[in-house]
Amino acid sequence: MKWGGRKVKIAVLGGAACTKEVSELAYEVGSLIAERGGVLICGGRGGVMEAACKGACDKGGLTIGILPGDLAGEANPFVHIALPTGLGEARNVIIVKSADAAIAVNGSYGTLSEIAFCLKLGVPVVGLRTWTIDPDIHQAQNAAEAVELAFQLARNRAGGR
Amino acid sequence: MKWGGRKVKIAVLGGAACTKEVSELAYEVGSLIAERGGVLICGGRGGVMEAACKGACDKGGLTIGILPGDLAGEANPFVHIALPTGLGEARNVIIVKSADAAIAVNGSYGTLSEIAFCLKLGVPVVGLRTWTIDPDIHQAQNAAEAVELAFQLARNRAGGR
Amino acid sequence: MKWGGRKVKIAVLGGAACTKEVSELAYEVGSLIAERGGVLICGGRGGVMEAACKGACDKGGLTIGILPGDLAGEANPFVHIALPTGLGEARNVIIVKSADAAIAVNGSYGTLSEIAFCLKLGVPVVGLRTWTIDPDIHQAQNAAEAVELAFQLARNRAGGR
Amino acid sequence: MKWGGRKVKIAVLGGAACTKEVSELAYEVGSLIAERGGVLICGGRGGVMEAACKGACDKGGLTIGILPGDLAGEANPFVHIALPTGLGEARNVIIVKSADAAIAVNGSYGTLSEIAFCLKLGVPVVGLRTWTIDPDIHQAQNAAEAVELAFQLARNRAGGR
Repeated sequence: MKWGGRKVKIAVLGGAACTKEVSELAYEVGSLIAERGGVLICGGRGGVMEAACKGACDKGGLTIGILPGDLAGEANPFVHIALPTGLGEARNVIIVKSADAAIAVNGSYGTLSEIAFCLKLGVPVVGLRTWTIDPDIHQAQNAAEAVELAFQLARNRAGGR
Repeated sequence: MKWGGRKVKIAVLGGAACTKEVSELAYEVGSLIAERGGVLICGGRGGVMEAACKGACDKGGLTIGILPGDLAGEANPFVHIALPTGLGEARNVIIVKSADAAIAVNGSYGTLSEIAFCLKLGVPVVGLRTWTIDPDIHQAQNAAEAVELAFQLARNRAGGR
Repeated sequence: MKWGGRKVKIAVLGGAACTKEVSELAYEVGSLIAERGGVLICGGRGGVMEAACKGACDKGGLTIGILPGDLAGEANPFVHIALPTGLGEARNVIIVKSADAAIAVNGSYGTLSEIAFCLKLGVPVVGLRTWTIDPDIHQAQNAAEAVELAFQLARNRAGGR
Repeated sequence: MKWGGRKVKIAVLGGAACTKEVSELAYEVGSLIAERGGVLICGGRGGVMEAACKGACDKGGLTIGILPGDLAGEANPFVHIALPTGLGEARNVIIVKSADAAIAVNGSYGTLSEIAFCLKLGVPVVGLRTWTIDPDIHQAQNAAEAVELAFQLARNRAGGR
């Protein structure tokens, strides 16, 4: 394994339980992030998070799970680096702060809190069939468009800093 | 000073900057919480938080500020117990978990994250001229209705536990 | 109830389980803090924390418990304001940051982490039958001396800011 | 890059400033962790953390920095995955919880808080010229012994779970 410089980190936000259709969407998002060489950051649990991690794993990408509980064993099996924080929902803000950009796939109130932190902290957030409550959530039509947009926003942000 | 048992704790959520009109609304909310014997919990900063704390102070109520930074001196002058957490935005979830019910007065993305945590964690939340994105935000028309509703929801919740 | 300005906040640090002798010491510390008009901050659980809170309550003082878990019901019965953080052990640093000075009564590894945070963050810490690993822990011989010293250190610190 | 299963995660604890001698020791610890295929977790800052990350990088290892502040740019240049938590010193407990075992190299009060969390949470901790305040800190004589011991303790722990 060789690591050259810092990788783009993309957070995937979404529920710990989801439909098969949403799961397939999250899988595609994860695999496209890995194909572009991005590191996938997520909450490390099931549902959208697990599907995205599986997608990334299948393309040889690296996945990081920032867990709410105390045990690495809580992570889904496709998390390479499981970081148990013991912080409960407060860990949501760490996921956001750690990302260069975020993609929200569906999701409920937990995802809403993460979207709110993105908007508050200026982390670009792309939405896929998720909350459409604010014009600053960049709505995408499909996984390819979402990942393309997220990398572009991450690059713009890095360029502006 | 005498303390008999635990007091009802009502969180007031809202922006660190606000218009005069919103400030007056927050002041009224704070004063009504204190009149009913509630403890006011908030983020301890300016704007809605400061106006609500001033309202509570003027009625002899107790105010608690759960601050994002490291210094008690960051608190507005109407916070009696300033708790500097050094957690940044992660402190938002503590405000929510500490409350028996919450009242959101106006507010932007930070307030949105707190409303999301209320919805996620089952803390009843009343809205006053704030985000109307979910039916579980109990919208109120004025300060009196908001405080009445918040105490009622706090009582129901305690009864059900 | 009337609140005039900010009160001195003294943290009492110590184990969630302790001997009868240590419990009596903590009770005395709590009661002396309250007699001097201080607010008692602690982790809100049993053992040293509960005994200190009971002491403060018996003298009409105000007690605040910054809890590791999600539920206010975890607090000992002598906590007036129970703040459930859901942060686990990470809440230890909030106890320290919230205090003007701290008194460690006996205690094990959790207390050690809190003493370390006091030393790191410059919060004066008084020791009573606790870790004697650093000259900056102000060792006291009894409860009266510990509380006297804590208030004096808190005042000096406030004066220097 | 290919990732097969979870890697052993070793935390390196130590000060953000240190002598040349301690820095060389930390460098050697980092390089030996990477040679054994471990992932290095640390606080992401300078001093011991930077030297250990550099050592790991030079052997092609992966380094993760769990930062106290809000910006990835705070990380030392040898951190591959920078995770800004915005939690201040509360992030110390995440470093500990994320590790299978820890090695403390020298260090002051911040390191002491991390050692205390290791002892509290049952994360095996090896000491190299650091605090010798408890028999459960496994003291090592040199970097090779420390890393050997840390991997052994991590394996025993995993086996026992």
